[in-house]
Amino acid sequence: MALIVQKYGGTSVGSPDRIKNLARRVARFKALGHQIVVVVSAMSGETNRLIGLAKEIMSEPDPRELDVMVATGEQVTIGLTAMALMELGLKAKSYTGAQVRIVTDNAHNKARISHIEEERIRKDLNDGYVVVVAGFQGVDEQGNITTLGRGGSDTTGVALAAALNADECQIYTDVDGVYTTDPRLVPEARRLKSITFEEMLELASQGSKVLQIRSVEFAGKYKVKLRVLSSFEEDGEGTLITFEDPENKDSNMEQPVISGIAFNRDEAKIMVLGVPDKPGIAYQILGPIADAKIDVDMIIQNTGADGTTDFTFTVHKNEMFKALGILNQVQTHIGAREVRGDDKIAKVSVVGVGMRSHVGIASQMFRTLAEEGINIQMISTSEIKIAVVIDEKYMELAVRVLHKAFELEEA
Amino acid sequence: MALIVQKYGGTSVGSPDRIKNLARRVARFKALGHQIVVVVSAMSGETNRLIGLAKEIMSEPDPRELDVMVATGEQVTIGLTAMALMELGLKAKSYTGAQVRIVTDNAHNKARISHIEEERIRKDLNDGYVVVVAGFQGVDEQGNITTLGRGGSDTTGVALAAALNADECQIYTDVDGVYTTDPRLVPEARRLKSITFEEMLELASQGSKVLQIRSVEFAGKYKVKLRVLSSFEEDGEGTLITFEDPENKDSNMEQPVISGIAFNRDEAKIMVLGVPDKPGIAYQILGPIADAKIDVDMIIQNTGADGTTDFTFTVHKNEMFKALGILNQVQTHIGAREVRGDDKIAKVSVVGVGMRSHVGIASQMFRTLAEEGINIQMISTSEIKIAVVIDEKYMELAVRVLHKAFELEEA
Repeated sequence: MALIVQKYGGTSVGSPDRIKNLARRVARFKALGHQIVVVVSAMSGETNRLIGLAKEIMSEPDPRELDVMVATGEQVTIGLTAMALMELGLKAKSYTGAQVRIVTDNAHNKARISHIEEERIRKDLNDGYVVVVAGFQGVDEQGNITTLGRGGSDTTGVALAAALNADECQIYTDVDGVYTTDPRLVPEARRLKSITFEEMLELASQGSKVLQIRSVEFAGKYKVKLRVLSSFEEDGEGTLITFEDPENKDSNMEQPVISGIAFNRDEAKIMVLGVPDKPGIAYQILGPIADAKIDVDMIIQNTGADGTTDFTFTVHKNEMFKALGILNQVQTHIGAREVRGDDKIAKVSVVGVGMRSHVGIASQMFRTLAEEGINIQMISTSEIKIAVVIDEKYMELAVRVLHKAFELEEA
Repeated sequence: MALIVQKYGGTSVGSPDRIKNLARRVARFKALGHQIVVVVSAMSGETNRLIGLAKEIMSEPDPRELDVMVATGEQVTIGLTAMALMELGLKAKSYTGAQVRIVTDNAHNKARISHIEEERIRKDLNDGYVVVVAGFQGVDEQGNITTLGRGGSDTTGVALAAALNADECQIYTDVDGVYTTDPRLVPEARRLKSITFEEMLELASQGSKVLQIRSVEFAGKYKVKLRVLSSFEEDGEGTLITFEDPENKDSNMEQPVISGIAFNRDEAKIMVLGVPDKPGIAYQILGPIADAKIDVDMIIQNTGADGTTDFTFTVHKNEMFKALGILNQVQTHIGAREVRGDDKIAKVSVVGVGMRSHVGIASQMFRTLAEEGINIQMISTSEIKIAVVIDEKYMELAVRVLHKAFELEEA
């Protein structure tokens, strides 16, 4: 008997019939003797409908009140899901984030989970209930309703699996696993049977939108066994997210050098040019950005010969103007020559744990792009990925030629 | 400076534009220096949409899970209303029933309020906020979401007014006050400037669907000054619900004998025939009905000459078959000859505090009905009303002729 957390996204609960399907799947697992916690999103389209309604009243909806409204999406789904399970003769009970007490900070619209009071769920499981929990939402210490931001239901699933010490967290989605890249872009893309957490982290954060990045971080931190599966296939095995044994990282002969190509066109580039090259300058630039809770992805600094430095970083496109506004205020103080933004960019990354022991990946990547005449604007590397920022209009081309160059279509 | 609770129903919050209207009205009251608590219903149609969704999954939705779903209707409205107030530059904050802690019993779908923790609202009011509260919903001692049943938002408004010791509770609706009878049935019906609580209680419970009966009981119990107003008129004064001074009940020379004619076609009649006429029989019949939480309205018992008695009572039409099922189980035990139901009935009542000091009201009522050939099936009287049950098909006719007979069209 295992304890399994199953998370179902918006398309998997998009209609009463799909919810009934979900219930039948849960019933099959329950019949095998497992304890099941089901985490559900809002029905597809519902969150956007609610945000649209809010914007008819207030063009920039108040964050606290928006959370009050948007949290109703999952609340409807948990009621329907619990009823669908009861119709199959199962004992079921639903909880909102506030009822579980999934406690978060008070950063409305993108709150972070601080802890989960899981005792009530554990008691229900031991009493034979299937427990249905609203994803994406929580409650702060003052009792205000919070949401975790888009895709936050994955995070809820993994956090619950961690809190309950579950045997596996299954993420049901409309794809049947993690691919070498987005099959809509490259038809030859291939499903990976397994992928390491680190690779997954890079692939998710780089734009392979299978799992929300925070959920993967959470899973890694709490060693949750995570599996991505299709909610429309009966018996798919999906993609298992594995922990690489650090003592043994080069032993797997079959480990391919590159696991996949990720891409992201949601970022904008911010350049702070001609800054005096002295200690503390990076903090003076990024401090106010962090204070405004703007997430920064890539950060690059090049020191020029004239005693000044160029500082470049990327943020979400939606936050470019906010970030530029903040930097315009501090520009004089930090002595920068110019602050400039560009949202016509895309990031393309080559990801693979194998690259640590293989030289030449970077040069092969750059040569492939050069052969297509694609100029590289920024480069950033980690142990398991090489990311480049290029002109947005070359993104699809870059992904296709890299997928081919690294022979990812072959198993 | 007064503390005013304003309750707005589903049609008053039926669209973003109507919510903006509501906000402008609240802003006018706030500008006069008043403290305002706004109680809102779900947007019109939303509760039915949610119930319909639930019924696609479960023909008789689980009561606990239905409350989880249905409570989202008001939760959306409070967010929108708070934002609309902010757009006008007011400070506003929303609370669900669970967040206020409007504590109820655990009778899902028709819970009763046990107490309200009003400290948080009072603090917000003192800090200059307009506080927006979800009507119709609460939370039980175990933290389960409950709803008060249809029309429960009125009850929330009055209960909050009582808990906060408010100066007035204003119920905004799509009618501009309480009428002598439903103007849709009798075009000559006239708006009453004031009406006593007792009359209101009779009129509301008898089917003049202006206010939910429980809210009137609550208002009477806690001496809340209650006013019914139109949300579509700028300056209507509505109908004030007054307390009659018991020391002075006959002193008001202008008090009309009859205030209005109420009617109700939502009830069904249950007859338990040929029951042995012995002590305890009424309890044996109604005990199981009460245990099943079926509300009973009229109760009549006639003792026959043969040592048996006929026991007749009315319940909501929706609960007739449930009630019959229960009585069929106990029929043998209580020795009843027959149990029978009839849902083709209507109740018509003549209401007025004045009738206490005027003889002949009953005979005038019965003569008026007899002249139209309308047979009376049941009669029930109280100090301020005479109610009759008749064949459903004569209801409109009965209301019209009684309205005329008691000269209610004249002021």
